[in-house]
Amino acid sequence: MTPVRPSALQLRIDGASLDRRIQLMSHTGPTRLAYSEEDVRGRAVAIDMMREVGLRVSIDAAGNIVGRRPGHEQLPSLACGSHLDTVRNGGNYDGILGVMAAIECVATLQEAGHKTVHPIEVIVFANEEGQRFGALCGSRAMVGALGADDLAHADETGRTLAEAIQSVGGNPAQLPAAVRKTGDIAVFVELHIEQGGTLEQARVPIGIVKGISGISYTDVRIFGSANHSGTTAMELRKDALAGAAELVLCVQRAALDKRCQVATVGQLVVVPNSTNIIPGNVTLTIEVRDLDRKKTMATMKHLHERAQEIALRSGVQIEFSARTPIDSVPCSSLVRKTIEQSCVDLGFEFQTLPSGAGHDAQMMAKLAPIGMIFVPSMGGISHSPREFTSSEDCARGAQVLLESILRLDEALPELMGAAE
Amino acid sequence: MTPVRPSALQLRIDGASLDRRIQLMSHTGPTRLAYSEEDVRGRAVAIDMMREVGLRVSIDAAGNIVGRRPGHEQLPSLACGSHLDTVRNGGNYDGILGVMAAIECVATLQEAGHKTVHPIEVIVFANEEGQRFGALCGSRAMVGALGADDLAHADETGRTLAEAIQSVGGNPAQLPAAVRKTGDIAVFVELHIEQGGTLEQARVPIGIVKGISGISYTDVRIFGSANHSGTTAMELRKDALAGAAELVLCVQRAALDKRCQVATVGQLVVVPNSTNIIPGNVTLTIEVRDLDRKKTMATMKHLHERAQEIALRSGVQIEFSARTPIDSVPCSSLVRKTIEQSCVDLGFEFQTLPSGAGHDAQMMAKLAPIGMIFVPSMGGISHSPREFTSSEDCARGAQVLLESILRLDEALPELMGAAE
Repeated sequence: MTPVRPSALQLRIDGASLDRRIQLMSHTGPTRLAYSEEDVRGRAVAIDMMREVGLRVSIDAAGNIVGRRPGHEQLPSLACGSHLDTVRNGGNYDGILGVMAAIECVATLQEAGHKTVHPIEVIVFANEEGQRFGALCGSRAMVGALGADDLAHADETGRTLAEAIQSVGGNPAQLPAAVRKTGDIAVFVELHIEQGGTLEQARVPIGIVKGISGISYTDVRIFGSANHSGTTAMELRKDALAGAAELVLCVQRAALDKRCQVATVGQLVVVPNSTNIIPGNVTLTIEVRDLDRKKTMATMKHLHERAQEIALRSGVQIEFSARTPIDSVPCSSLVRKTIEQSCVDLGFEFQTLPSGAGHDAQMMAKLAPIGMIFVPSMGGISHSPREFTSSEDCARGAQVLLESILRLDEALPELMGAAE
Repeated sequence: MTPVRPSALQLRIDGASLDRRIQLMSHTGPTRLAYSEEDVRGRAVAIDMMREVGLRVSIDAAGNIVGRRPGHEQLPSLACGSHLDTVRNGGNYDGILGVMAAIECVATLQEAGHKTVHPIEVIVFANEEGQRFGALCGSRAMVGALGADDLAHADETGRTLAEAIQSVGGNPAQLPAAVRKTGDIAVFVELHIEQGGTLEQARVPIGIVKGISGISYTDVRIFGSANHSGTTAMELRKDALAGAAELVLCVQRAALDKRCQVATVGQLVVVPNSTNIIPGNVTLTIEVRDLDRKKTMATMKHLHERAQEIALRSGVQIEFSARTPIDSVPCSSLVRKTIEQSCVDLGFEFQTLPSGAGHDAQMMAKLAPIGMIFVPSMGGISHSPREFTSSEDCARGAQVLLESILRLDEALPELMGAAE
């Protein structure tokens, strides 16, 4: 007979408590740049909360905060969490929700007196945003992808990453100690706000992340001929900006036509940029994102062909110069199915979607199967003090997280036994 | 019986001599910013040449160099000339040709011992390019359109226009003395390089200018919504740059469809201009030129309508803010006919065309009927050390100038008696 699992249907997340935690953290924002005084204050608030719910808290060599709750058995842990650092003038939900919800899940288990079979870990990753020293510092350290050269990197004030890590209680001299062994963590689940408007538009409260998109970047240089805007007949022009405008619209069109998930020209500079001179040169960037590497590559190839057509037709020269791409990271299909079943049981509508933004989960995927749960962002706004997710949506996300942890705790050996 | 006029068919311009003059002036270039040491050197070279061909040289209060050759009678003068100042890293023909050809015409008359009925004036206008203190300073002063506020204007080094004018021998305290009286000048003819590629493409050596185009300027601000390029679905974006790209192509299309002579977006700035952020704001300038004010205004109205369509379709906001337009200046039809007849007599092919660029002639039009003669610019290049017009084309232009002066000298009373 299967033991009765105390599902989230019995163990209800206290939405008001989760709300208070988010509120409390917001008092240390809206700018909590990693390793700053504000970040240290935010981390202290979190550490207090973690201890209150019975987690055994330590800070690893990379400055990650790790809260541990023992299980019935000595098994790999069920890990969850996110980050507390923000961009400059950021919001109260990006990262924060994932940490506060993980703590609230543990609070719920503690109140119910329920002990899981596996240990549970709540992880607060250091410097996810990477406004200084590059993104995902803490999670990179956990998978051995942060090195001595990274530690020596200095910010604009001359402070090195090593010094920054030390200032939050890390031990950069022992950085390899932060690297987690395979089999140490059984699974990692991160709850996060969507940072886009898809769920809000669809009026669906839960997003199940298929994976974290890969990115292809290309720098484009367009060479026309700078000339007098009054004396140069239209037919004789080589207008680099007109060529660029055609390409910008091709980039937009490629994604609207579903060649890839999203495609963006975010940066464009005109030279000489004078009212009465036909633009001689334009530089711009193309960024293409998709879960499928083949699609980002095919889209970039398509855009390169369109660019050559534009060049032929308009007499400008167009050069593409690819930057190193970022690989996509799929979420574990078994973890996704677990989250999906949790939603079904809880009666929450859900939809699957890719994560266009990067997250600590993508590093953790090197150690263990990962899953991500998204909740709606009002107006699709993120990285802004206007970032907002309703209490109801936050609580629903936390309940799905709790339910998924309990399901994984029960079924993990079987799930992991099956081939991914 | 009509007196036999010594037409240019008898009085041949010495192309080699004109060439030497241009060469000599080039040694003081390619950068002869107005009122600079290089400009002073170039002006000294010109003054020497003017004196050599018998011109009585003076410098007016605004720093214009005026060389005078008396006629048989006390009549209004036949004026010709152009400027010697250049843009930064300019060429050897823009302005220079008009001055050197005017001097060569006088040299030819002198050598032939021919005295015109009207006095002849060769004018070297100060600061046509306006890289500092605004354009057409010298010709504006001659028509009373340069004031005390202009004189007080300082460049980036703190030097005022008054000081600059003084440094080239002008007398800014007596600026009104530079203003020419109506009836003082009978006609003004300026030879200039085309600064575009129309004549070269058509393989026609002489352009007869219909007029100097007017300009409508508009500053455009496009307001979208800056957002994460990875997390914001294509359908939910308000991409200011995509909207701008559509508008840039509408501007180009408007001129290609002959709504106006030329239309240009020369300046475009993206905010925040980051690879992974959807552009939130774009500012750009639209410049529309045509001889017909109605056409520039109708084109701008058309573009405003297109912009509103783009805004509706894409969710961005687009605001137009018009700058003060510059009126077009027609060339005198009688002077145009005289130039045309000169070309016919000389057996030179010609075509009529607008001047998209501004010239001192457009100021002189306030005093007297004007005409402009264009010669081809190789590759349509101007404001560049690569600016080039062949010796043959320069000589042809100078011959048309000489022939036109002689025709005007003979026929001016009748011509001017007729209603324009």
